[in-house]
Amino acid sequence: MKGETHRKQIPVAITMGCPAGIGPEIICRLFHQEQETGARNSVVVGDIRVLQQMAHQLGMDIPVVSWSPGQAIAAGTLPVLQVRTVRSEPVCWGQPDTNTGLIMGQAVEQAVEMVTKGTASAIVTCPISKRSLQQAGYPYPGHTEMLAHLTGTPRVRMMMAGSRLKVVLVTIHIPLARVSELLTQEEVEDCISMTLAALKQDFALTAPRIAVAGLNPHSGEEGLFGDEEQRIITPAIRNFSSDLVSGPWPPDTVFFKAATGEFDAVVAMYHDQGLIPFKMLHFQDGVNVTLGLPLVRTSVDHGTAYDIAGCNRADHSSLVAAVAAAHTILDNRRQRYRA
Amino acid sequence: MKGETHRKQIPVAITMGCPAGIGPEIICRLFHQEQETGARNSVVVGDIRVLQQMAHQLGMDIPVVSWSPGQAIAAGTLPVLQVRTVRSEPVCWGQPDTNTGLIMGQAVEQAVEMVTKGTASAIVTCPISKRSLQQAGYPYPGHTEMLAHLTGTPRVRMMMAGSRLKVVLVTIHIPLARVSELLTQEEVEDCISMTLAALKQDFALTAPRIAVAGLNPHSGEEGLFGDEEQRIITPAIRNFSSDLVSGPWPPDTVFFKAATGEFDAVVAMYHDQGLIPFKMLHFQDGVNVTLGLPLVRTSVDHGTAYDIAGCNRADHSSLVAAVAAAHTILDNRRQRYRA
Repeated sequence: MKGETHRKQIPVAITMGCPAGIGPEIICRLFHQEQETGARNSVVVGDIRVLQQMAHQLGMDIPVVSWSPGQAIAAGTLPVLQVRTVRSEPVCWGQPDTNTGLIMGQAVEQAVEMVTKGTASAIVTCPISKRSLQQAGYPYPGHTEMLAHLTGTPRVRMMMAGSRLKVVLVTIHIPLARVSELLTQEEVEDCISMTLAALKQDFALTAPRIAVAGLNPHSGEEGLFGDEEQRIITPAIRNFSSDLVSGPWPPDTVFFKAATGEFDAVVAMYHDQGLIPFKMLHFQDGVNVTLGLPLVRTSVDHGTAYDIAGCNRADHSSLVAAVAAAHTILDNRRQRYRA
Repeated sequence: MKGETHRKQIPVAITMGCPAGIGPEIICRLFHQEQETGARNSVVVGDIRVLQQMAHQLGMDIPVVSWSPGQAIAAGTLPVLQVRTVRSEPVCWGQPDTNTGLIMGQAVEQAVEMVTKGTASAIVTCPISKRSLQQAGYPYPGHTEMLAHLTGTPRVRMMMAGSRLKVVLVTIHIPLARVSELLTQEEVEDCISMTLAALKQDFALTAPRIAVAGLNPHSGEEGLFGDEEQRIITPAIRNFSSDLVSGPWPPDTVFFKAATGEFDAVVAMYHDQGLIPFKMLHFQDGVNVTLGLPLVRTSVDHGTAYDIAGCNRADHSSLVAAVAAAHTILDNRRQRYRA
């Protein structure tokens, strides 16, 4: 019990994302809304002055205070672990620069270090700009690749998780025209395996039911509109128990079936196949969970939204959901390994 | 006024679809449910004995009676125009044969003839089997192509219409891998034009707002994941007024935006891009409307469902919606041409 109490006190690290995006605003809104609970025992990794600037602009009376690992979190505050680079002048909302890129990248590095050292229990990330990350000297195509590299993880998968639908993507940020050639049996199998593991370990399902989507209209209609189902997807599914994994299902109905309770998750072949139905149901409160990392990482499912940054009208529902999902996963893993 | 009354008496022709599929069941359910209204002035084109067999099996006490063009519809009945081929033995549900293919094809021919002669006001189709249509000697890949041929129409488009979302497809029944190569500026433009015309003429919108979806994730993110947006879709959109037509929108959010009122219809680049979000919202009550024909044709948005044919558990919501949509379109066209 003593160990359990101790673990529960370790905070979740929320990275601030791009200082010029909506990250600072949704963080201020989260901590203001949950001022009494301390945003479920969370700390922010970022720049304290940017957060103070935003809290002031929003007219929120929550104290944005300096925090360092191991220190107790003062009730009713927004605790910030300052990254190495300090912002010397106010952020111009919607206008990223090299300095914002540095703050953003350092926050992710610092959060990984915290989890590695045991001073944070999980990472929740706010949106970054891929372009300014690279301009600041970080050679990663995106957040997930950066986390994979920092933790030495060879393979990660993106799961979009919501209360009604969970989808995991086999291929992600590639042109639609290249999906077919990049789809392999090995990738589909790997994605199914990681989805199975996540549903058991992170979502506490003892016998998860995974639906695998086809690639083509009507799943190819017996080869009439494409044969990837026969060549790639069906052979991949055959390597799993039919109690757990089924398909290939016609893409236009499988997501509705999952959302109405027939399946716990859908393995989707490409970005929009999974994201279109997911965002129909979870436009505001979707969470991105990275499968395969040696640490728990969730993320908001939206971008930096530079067009509305600083306009005081960002919606923080996805951040609330991402923090909640991180806690759910942590709790489920603790249960599982204690059992 | 006299002409108007006369036109209103012309019935809508519902084709029975494959006799061995769920068509007969959903027709019986429709007429039974709307026994007092005569299914909004509709008649069925098909085989009377098949419909009698189904009504009997369902335990429905509605008289299935013979009807011919010009004849008054007897209240409380299910009126059937018998096609040339008469079914001599009971249908084995779920088991199509050459005879079912003939009945199915003749019903479509007969319904087109009725509209041409002015004895039907519109066609509502129940699902057919492409395979048995072809086995019966009809050389069409599907329903829509058959209707296009019978009416001498060079170009038709498929719109999926529901109360919350309308989508029109640029490409349809082709492998996903071929979508990019078959997508042309001309096809996108043509699809936008036909969608605009339909929203004005058939759905009575004076200033419709059409969203055109991109093809790639994030609409290509400035060419990073594909350039069809820049090469094909944007040039097509530029030929229309920006008040009416906008895009290319990121595919993963545009359908949500349309469903929440930002747009009246979405032009989708491929089958599942449009059908996945449509079926999330209108799984039971979606309607397929064929744009471009010289007559009004709506259809249920599901297939023959041989797996549940004869099981007495088919849902007729889509047929109810298809009949209602045909009437809405007829009414809107009358209003428009009277104005």
